[in-house]
Amino acid sequence: MIILGIDPGTAIMGYGLIEQKGTVLSALDYACWRTPAHTPLAERLLMLYEHIDPYLTVHKPDHIAVEELFFNRNTTTALAVGHARGVVLLTGAQHGIPIYEYTPLQVKQAVVGYGKAEKNQVQQMVRGLLRLNDIPKPDDTADALALAICHAHSFALNRKMGEFR
Amino acid sequence: MIILGIDPGTAIMGYGLIEQKGTVLSALDYACWRTPAHTPLAERLLMLYEHIDPYLTVHKPDHIAVEELFFNRNTTTALAVGHARGVVLLTGAQHGIPIYEYTPLQVKQAVVGYGKAEKNQVQQMVRGLLRLNDIPKPDDTADALALAICHAHSFALNRKMGEFR
Repeated sequence: MIILGIDPGTAIMGYGLIEQKGTVLSALDYACWRTPAHTPLAERLLMLYEHIDPYLTVHKPDHIAVEELFFNRNTTTALAVGHARGVVLLTGAQHGIPIYEYTPLQVKQAVVGYGKAEKNQVQQMVRGLLRLNDIPKPDDTADALALAICHAHSFALNRKMGEFR
Repeated sequence: MIILGIDPGTAIMGYGLIEQKGTVLSALDYACWRTPAHTPLAERLLMLYEHIDPYLTVHKPDHIAVEELFFNRNTTTALAVGHARGVVLLTGAQHGIPIYEYTPLQVKQAVVGYGKAEKNQVQQMVRGLLRLNDIPKPDDTADALALAICHAHSFALNRKMGEFR
């Protein structure tokens, strides 16, 4: 199964494509898409769409994993992330790819085994699980890979549990 | 000039298409797009996209006006509206249509001439300015028409002021 993790943002959008074969995970591709500052929001969203859309066509992920967001803080940030996230969800739906959402707690739990893990612990586990030489940079890319790993673990587990129902 | 006002939301998205000829405004079309409850967000965004995209192709508005949002309250609402708004901005950019944003204060100021006007005053002015028999329903549709009127007034004024610069 091929899983695409996406950490949405209008200025920078991290992505991480992994393959799951049995219990083995491998990183296929990971980086981030950036949009230039001082660009109207609509233009930025179009630029992101024009990255994501062909990416899904070429790499055909089976599932997409994005962060489920709870904001207690900044509503302006929530609105901005909402715009970028809307474009990701729309593009996924256009390609008929199921989209799964995970909270930061679920990601930490699935990747480190501990819901209150530090960012650095998550990143070290991402590096280790995918057998990478270095921690992927920037944080947005590492976060996207962590989401993909979280989905790989959770989805396999959910399927296994489903068998006993 | 043809102006499309949009009041974005994931459950209901109001729209109002008006034509400005000199100082005369006319309503060409107004209603709202709805998405069924209990539908995954990505599906709802796709449904909205599939309303907006052909609408822009058919009606070719010169400009789009949307509300500029400031939330002091609910971040969950901000995030949800952000998703729907992202789809509107993206689709507008795909069609190369300039998008203008107005705060609720600017809309009231432009439509009623008073920034603290009540919702009903705004709706009565929308009805009057567009010579409609009734106040457009639901509120989302009336709000979308108010946005389009606001843009018609503001854009004409900005152009006039521009001539004196």
